[in-house]
Amino acid sequence: MQITALSGGIGGARFLRGLQQHLANENLDADITVIGNTGDDIWIHGLRICPDLDTVMYTLGGGSSEERGWGREGETFNAKDELAAYGVEPTWFGLGDKDIATHLVRSTSLSAGYSLSDVTTALCQRWQPGVRLLPMSNERAETHVVVDDPSGALDSSGAPMRIAIHFQEWWIRYRASLPAHEFVIVGIDDARPAPGVLDAIAAADVILLPPSNPVVSIGTILAVPGIRDALRSTSAPVVGLSPIVGGAPVRGMADACLTTVGVETSALGVAGLYGARTQSGILDAWLIDESDAHAVPAIEALGIPCSAIPLMMSDLDATAAMAAQALRVAGTHV
Amino acid sequence: MQITALSGGIGGARFLRGLQQHLANENLDADITVIGNTGDDIWIHGLRICPDLDTVMYTLGGGSSEERGWGREGETFNAKDELAAYGVEPTWFGLGDKDIATHLVRSTSLSAGYSLSDVTTALCQRWQPGVRLLPMSNERAETHVVVDDPSGALDSSGAPMRIAIHFQEWWIRYRASLPAHEFVIVGIDDARPAPGVLDAIAAADVILLPPSNPVVSIGTILAVPGIRDALRSTSAPVVGLSPIVGGAPVRGMADACLTTVGVETSALGVAGLYGARTQSGILDAWLIDESDAHAVPAIEALGIPCSAIPLMMSDLDATAAMAAQALRVAGTHV
Repeated sequence: MQITALSGGIGGARFLRGLQQHLANENLDADITVIGNTGDDIWIHGLRICPDLDTVMYTLGGGSSEERGWGREGETFNAKDELAAYGVEPTWFGLGDKDIATHLVRSTSLSAGYSLSDVTTALCQRWQPGVRLLPMSNERAETHVVVDDPSGALDSSGAPMRIAIHFQEWWIRYRASLPAHEFVIVGIDDARPAPGVLDAIAAADVILLPPSNPVVSIGTILAVPGIRDALRSTSAPVVGLSPIVGGAPVRGMADACLTTVGVETSALGVAGLYGARTQSGILDAWLIDESDAHAVPAIEALGIPCSAIPLMMSDLDATAAMAAQALRVAGTHV
Repeated sequence: MQITALSGGIGGARFLRGLQQHLANENLDADITVIGNTGDDIWIHGLRICPDLDTVMYTLGGGSSEERGWGREGETFNAKDELAAYGVEPTWFGLGDKDIATHLVRSTSLSAGYSLSDVTTALCQRWQPGVRLLPMSNERAETHVVVDDPSGALDSSGAPMRIAIHFQEWWIRYRASLPAHEFVIVGIDDARPAPGVLDAIAAADVILLPPSNPVVSIGTILAVPGIRDALRSTSAPVVGLSPIVGGAPVRGMADACLTTVGVETSALGVAGLYGARTQSGILDAWLIDESDAHAVPAIEALGIPCSAIPLMMSDLDATAAMAAQALRVAGTHV
C-alpha cells in the first residue's frame, strides 16, 4: 500500500507517528511518502532552515523534543544567545545548537548545488524516519504576512502603513497576534512540485491530510502549481482530519490564519476551505472530533462524507486510532 | 605611545594580556595595535574560522577558556557532535556552540561583501579587547603542510605519495606528528597587508613579537608581501620574546614547525630565523628565558642584543613583567 500525506510541522509529524504505530500494530506493509511544507522555510544567519521538514524528520526519527514538539531533545541555545550578544537580528528565532548542525549540512549542500530534495534525503539517511520525505518544492517560496507596521508608521493618507514580514516573524516573534491582512507566498508562481511529488499523489492508494494548519501548512502545499490539480485527478481517496476541535486549533494559532482568509475557525469552516472533490475541492472524506459531531450534517451538505471520532492526539495510541480511522474511511479497510 | 604587536593565538594573546596589565599597573597611556595571523584560518561547514584573531579577541575581551586557551569559557560542543553524527567531515575541529555564533556573524558579513578587517572590527565592538585588532591580510592565504599521505599510498616510483593538507588538519587532527616536508601558504603571493597594517608598523614607537610560533604564526605574517620590508624600515625598535625555553616550546608544537624549516628548536635558533635588523633580519632585541642565559653570547654574535629574563607566562604578573622588560629593552624605559 502506498500512503501519501501532506504535512506541516508538529501536528502532521505527530499524526504520522501515529500512522506508523497503527501500521506496526497491524503488521501492515505500507510505504509512506510525506510531502512537507516548505513555505515557512527561512534563511537566518546564513543558515537555511526548514522547520516543517525538520520537525517531521526529527519526530519520526526519534530526535525531537517531546515537550516543545519542535527542535531537538536535550537542546541547548548557546549560539542563539551569543548571536543576540553580538546584536545581530533576528533574535526571536529558536535556533538550537544541535539543530544548527542540520542547518549547516543543509546550507553547505545547497551552496554546493544539491537540491533541497537531495539534501533532505541525505539528512534522512541519518534519521531514518521510516517515510520518504519530500519537500513540496525545491524552489524558494516563503510565506509572508501583510500587517500594519508594528512601529505605528502611517502612510501619506494617514492610514497605517502596511508591510510584509516573514511568516516566521509573525508566528514566533508576534505569536500571530498582529492582525494579518493577507498571506503572500513569495515565489509560489514559479515554484514547481519537487521531483516525486506529483507521482506520489498520482500513484497513492490513499492520501491523507493530517491535522496540520490548513492555511499556512497544507494550504501552502496546495498553492504550488500542479499539486491541487494532482490531488483532484488522483484515483486515490483524499481523507482529511480536522485541526480544529470545538472551534479552536488543537495546537498553534490556526485561528488567526483562518480569520485572515475569511474562514470560520471550525471543523466545518476548514472542510469548506478544502472543499469536496465532487465540487472543485480536494476532499473525499473529512474526520472531525466527536465533540463537533453536530457539524456532520452541515459538512455532508457540502458534499463531503464526514465522520466524528476522537481527534485528540493525546498519546500515541489515540493517534494510531485516528490514523486507523482515516484509512478505514478511505475505504481501504485495513 | 603606539605599540604594535604581531600575534598568533594563545601565546600571543596571553602576552598581550600581560602587556595590558603592565600598562594598567604603571598607569601608562598607550595604543596597542595587534596584527593577527590569519594563515591558519579555515572554512569548515560553510563557516569562516579565524582561530588566532578569535583567540586574541576572546582572551583580551574576557571570554576565552582559561583552561584550553582557545575558544569560549563554558563552551558546549553539541553542534560538533551532531555534525559528526551526520557523518560530515571534518570531525576533528573543535567547533564550539558559542564560537559558532562568531563564525556565523563573520561568514554572513563576508558573504555580504564586508572585508575581514571590517568584520573583525565589528566583532570587537562586542568584545572590547582594548587593542585595535587587524588581520594580517584580507586576502585568503592559508598555510598547508606537505606530508607523506597518511594512508600509505605510494607514487609511481614506489616512494611515499606526498599530499598537502590544511595546517589545521596537521595541527589538530595529527597533533603535528606527521613529519612535514614543507609549509606552503596558498595564496600568499597575492595577499596584501590589510588596511592599517603597514601604517601600524611605520608609525609605531615599539614593535613587539610575542612568544608566538615563529614559523606558522609570526612567520606567516612576515610572509605577507610588504610586511617584512615594513618591519625592516620602521624607525621603531623591534623586540622579540622567545617562544622556546630550554630547547622546547613553552606551549604548542613549534618544535615540529622549526624542524621542518631546518631551524634548531632553541632560543638561538629562533633568533637566527628572525635575524638581526642590522643583517637583513628584523630583530633589534631578543629576550630569552633565564634558563637559556648560556645562549646570550651566541645570539649577540648574530648581531642581536639579547637579555635573559624569566619568560614563563605562569600568571598575569609574570607576563606583565615580561612585557615591561620588552618595553625596557626597546629603549622606551617606561
